[in-house]
Amino acid sequence: MYPAISFVLGGAAAGKSVFAEELVARSGLDKVYLATGEARDAEMAAKIDVHTARRGADWTTIEAPLDLAPALSGLAPGQICLLDCATFWLSNHLLAGHDIAAEQAALLAAIRSCAAPLVIVSNEVGTGIVPDNALARAFRDAQGRLNIELARAADLAVQVVAGLPLVLKGALP
Amino acid sequence: MYPAISFVLGGAAAGKSVFAEELVARSGLDKVYLATGEARDAEMAAKIDVHTARRGADWTTIEAPLDLAPALSGLAPGQICLLDCATFWLSNHLLAGHDIAAEQAALLAAIRSCAAPLVIVSNEVGTGIVPDNALARAFRDAQGRLNIELARAADLAVQVVAGLPLVLKGALP
Amino acid sequence: MYPAISFVLGGAAAGKSVFAEELVARSGLDKVYLATGEARDAEMAAKIDVHTARRGADWTTIEAPLDLAPALSGLAPGQICLLDCATFWLSNHLLAGHDIAAEQAALLAAIRSCAAPLVIVSNEVGTGIVPDNALARAFRDAQGRLNIELARAADLAVQVVAGLPLVLKGALP
Repeated sequence: MYPAISFVLGGAAAGKSVFAEELVARSGLDKVYLATGEARDAEMAAKIDVHTARRGADWTTIEAPLDLAPALSGLAPGQICLLDCATFWLSNHLLAGHDIAAEQAALLAAIRSCAAPLVIVSNEVGTGIVPDNALARAFRDAQGRLNIELARAADLAVQVVAGLPLVLKGALP
Repeated sequence: MYPAISFVLGGAAAGKSVFAEELVARSGLDKVYLATGEARDAEMAAKIDVHTARRGADWTTIEAPLDLAPALSGLAPGQICLLDCATFWLSNHLLAGHDIAAEQAALLAAIRSCAAPLVIVSNEVGTGIVPDNALARAFRDAQGRLNIELARAADLAVQVVAGLPLVLKGALP
Repeated sequence: MYPAISFVLGGAAAGKSVFAEELVARSGLDKVYLATGEARDAEMAAKIDVHTARRGADWTTIEAPLDLAPALSGLAPGQICLLDCATFWLSNHLLAGHDIAAEQAALLAAIRSCAAPLVIVSNEVGTGIVPDNALARAFRDAQGRLNIELARAADLAVQVVAGLPLVLKGALP
């Protein structure tokens, strides 16, 4: 049984997206890539290019930095969606000064009512030293709270460490 | 068999305290909260308020930022104590300029001779990039060494990731 | 069966080196320590002294901050080598302005053709908040990519958390 909601957590450059793409491929469904990252600078643009080239042409890409509900409600059975990633989505809302609790509640409602399986990628950002500045601390706490809720909603939760999956909840399909 | 010493490790906002409170509740014993955090600023005061409201009225709270031995030696069978957390305790001693090796040895002796089960919460702070400043590096190394000793003393060691427990040692009661 | 390549990952002061030394001792083979760290300042020199004193006199130590291939190709069956650590090696090459992709490919070729079992220690640095400066972000990404390749090449991959091993791949000997 393929999980309705999969949650893939990991550090920077830990192989989260590659693992998530492989997890999506195992479903055999039509692949939709829901991209939340924006090419605001050259460093970010280069990362997006690497991801795009690796995925290949058999993906439908939807770009949605802030409001994911329209894309999620438009999915149909027979499709599968890779949401990459919850961290950019959160960062975009924080930088826009939005009400994070309200946005998180709306995102979770959209995730739970989605007609297609979802694979959601997110970053672990809370196991370094306490950041000096208050915005970084607020982001870290908000990311921790969001990860808890996404893991709670998920049927499968995996932490990717050095490219290797560590199952926290459920079982790999 | 309920573990005599449980060690609950995790990142910031990863759900450590909620998990530890649930672990304490499973014992059925009288709950004592040994609080090491101090409300030095508004951000910290707000966090303490959230924790206090969530725990509810059936806890006896003891505040001890530095010397935990009197509280630990005062516990009786029939009680269970949640020490939240070892990270604030360590930070308080570092900021006070105390001898960390001596304080750690005294804490471990008090933990090992305690008459009631203990659940000890601590932070993982060592898996980010190397901090720029020497005090942060010293704190990070001291926290790592303390976590190793607490995990060694524990019958149960759990890492909490996105609210989900990953058992490192022993078995959940 | 003792693993040909073991990969030991963990945070700062998490007990990686102690665990790796115990893993090496279980082999019963002649112990070679391949040291990549350099005593560039007093803090680093003190760390090296602690490691050296702990290991004891039954190790042959080879210092190689940059090019590990000569040391690795010089190993013989009957020996076992502890490479401590991949993080200093990477940092040395980054600071020297070398081509990291080329150096990584050469290191992996040398590891794969080594005649003796290897235990490779490396740091997890990617699960804190995004670093402010570009060099730290580049290091973090390069370390993540290197860890993925080392874990892929390894027969045994272990994450050390608070001194306790969490097996990611293979089985402990």
